[in-house]
Amino acid sequence: MKQRLVKLQTWMKENEIEVSFLTSSENVFYLSGYYTDPHERLLALAVFQEEEPFLVCPSMEVHDAKRSGWEHDIIGYSDIENPWEMILNSINKRIPHVSQAAIEKEHMNVERYERLLNLFPHASFVSAEEKLRMLRMIKDAQELKIIEEACALADYAVQFGVSEIKEGKTELDVLNALEYALKQKGVTEMSFSTMVLTGANAASPHGTPGETKIKKGDLVLFDLGVVVDRYCSDITRTVAYGEINDKQKEIYDTVLKAQLAAIDASRPGVSAAEVDLTARRIISNAGYGEFFPHRLGHGLGISVHEYPSLTETNPLIIEEGMVYTIEPGIYVPEVAGVRIEDDVFITADGAKILTKFPKELQIIN
Amino acid sequence: MKQRLVKLQTWMKENEIEVSFLTSSENVFYLSGYYTDPHERLLALAVFQEEEPFLVCPSMEVHDAKRSGWEHDIIGYSDIENPWEMILNSINKRIPHVSQAAIEKEHMNVERYERLLNLFPHASFVSAEEKLRMLRMIKDAQELKIIEEACALADYAVQFGVSEIKEGKTELDVLNALEYALKQKGVTEMSFSTMVLTGANAASPHGTPGETKIKKGDLVLFDLGVVVDRYCSDITRTVAYGEINDKQKEIYDTVLKAQLAAIDASRPGVSAAEVDLTARRIISNAGYGEFFPHRLGHGLGISVHEYPSLTETNPLIIEEGMVYTIEPGIYVPEVAGVRIEDDVFITADGAKILTKFPKELQIIN
Repeated sequence: MKQRLVKLQTWMKENEIEVSFLTSSENVFYLSGYYTDPHERLLALAVFQEEEPFLVCPSMEVHDAKRSGWEHDIIGYSDIENPWEMILNSINKRIPHVSQAAIEKEHMNVERYERLLNLFPHASFVSAEEKLRMLRMIKDAQELKIIEEACALADYAVQFGVSEIKEGKTELDVLNALEYALKQKGVTEMSFSTMVLTGANAASPHGTPGETKIKKGDLVLFDLGVVVDRYCSDITRTVAYGEINDKQKEIYDTVLKAQLAAIDASRPGVSAAEVDLTARRIISNAGYGEFFPHRLGHGLGISVHEYPSLTETNPLIIEEGMVYTIEPGIYVPEVAGVRIEDDVFITADGAKILTKFPKELQIIN
Repeated sequence: MKQRLVKLQTWMKENEIEVSFLTSSENVFYLSGYYTDPHERLLALAVFQEEEPFLVCPSMEVHDAKRSGWEHDIIGYSDIENPWEMILNSINKRIPHVSQAAIEKEHMNVERYERLLNLFPHASFVSAEEKLRMLRMIKDAQELKIIEEACALADYAVQFGVSEIKEGKTELDVLNALEYALKQKGVTEMSFSTMVLTGANAASPHGTPGETKIKKGDLVLFDLGVVVDRYCSDITRTVAYGEINDKQKEIYDTVLKAQLAAIDASRPGVSAAEVDLTARRIISNAGYGEFFPHRLGHGLGISVHEYPSLTETNPLIIEEGMVYTIEPGIYVPEVAGVRIEDDVFITADGAKILTKFPKELQIIN
């Protein structure tokens, strides 16, 4: 945690930023270790080049923030107090003048921004978000451990969901059953809305689970993730219910081949674009290029979509410590929708696969 | 829907606002009938004093927006297009000059605000939020009908949850079972995180459901709500598992008396403060004033917390068409936590109660 603050402070020094005033739950958690969803109330972390940082939160949460391990100052404010004057005083106590401050411009709302402009009329405001995305992109050992737990639960969920496939069950039946099984294991939050899609629905990259019944000869696609200690996992598997036709098999095999090749290509020093293109070329060469309409994958961590973004044009170089998804898909309307997705961790030797449910075509009877 | 736009336009004329540029899913839905959660993408509704409004959304959602009944222009943009130039053109086509614009300052982020400042360097920006809160506060017949449906499902959920109470079951067991029952009825979203709390947990107004087992002599508190067609319900009931002691009964009776009195006081012409104080006085006179630490209630609709806010200082006058919660509570650590909450609709004759699960103390055996 301390190392993270030091990295931010180094960036602030290089860019002559006297204070970073961060307000998203995710970035406050990343730097302070304290997570809360304050709803409409203000949550903030103020970081300085040298001086002690401080946290701002509703007073009823001060105790929780301390218990989470935050050892520096905390400004707690009640619903009838104005936190902004307290913030101004705490900043003024630490530094004589603010000429440049960093904020989260994609997170902070205009109402709060206007308050800051009033408090610091001579300051200019720059965005801290890109820097924080780059910091969060590289995971440490503790983060990896948590993500591995989240991936193990995602594996369990797919396994449970597959075991629930039966003639006459709907997508929502299977979805509800697998989420219930996760709750019994103590899971309280999914990374995003779980998808269980079958038949024509699976053949759309943006399908919504509904009352469609699963029937023999269908492919069934599961896309889900579990949140553990604020970190997300994300897995997709496509299985066959009964025998499927040759065209469906060909599509499955093509996606799997592309996915394995992209995992193999994932190693420090190659570009994100090259990893994407490794999968994309295989799918294009098989004649399905137009049916793979999305990027190959995305980083994941505290958010389910983080850096790196694996697109065919991203020059970003893959580094040790990245965690990202590899999820090629082919969606041919009226024929088949197949996506296979793993989460991988990049080591010096290449990609370590964190999601472990089998990828050879599973035929359920 | 059209009536809502006309009311906003009247306010714009009175305040010399040439364009309202609204960006929250809730307000766009309220005025256009189209709901979407665009995540990090831009969603916006531009409204003018006389000219035709237009909607801005990702191009893959244009079809859905039309199908939802929106009959005016739609600007659809793809991930590689910049919507801001298209917005500027569409505004310039309608009006010659923007000197004052209304935005949602609590919703719009700084990154987007800076784009607007660039597009309209001579405009001043005011907040549209207070006006929209006042408009949304008064529900029409169609909104009431949907909220009634959401309330009926909330009643069902409490009834199902109560039927699941058994020795040895945990709070999470009961919670998961009732949410599963709702999913079987087609419910896909709750108004907020469902609470099932027992014993010492119920005696905290901010308890979190966990592995605590329900045991004889405990009170069990349910607080939950169901979303139907984007509208929320919100109900709280507290039931006894087996015989409870006299102190617990006294607390229950006091809360119920306060709740009934506040319903009775709810009618057009009285202030929100007076409604709150009607309940608060009863609780204070019974000696529990310090154990009722929150406001009496809040409006609800597209958001689970809307206007009016029923606090002891709010001078706002109750009007026909309001929908709000009445939820007094008493939380005595180590003794008991009781809250009873109904949703009510204000008619010329007073409050119509929308949530119907019984409020006389239910003793479960």
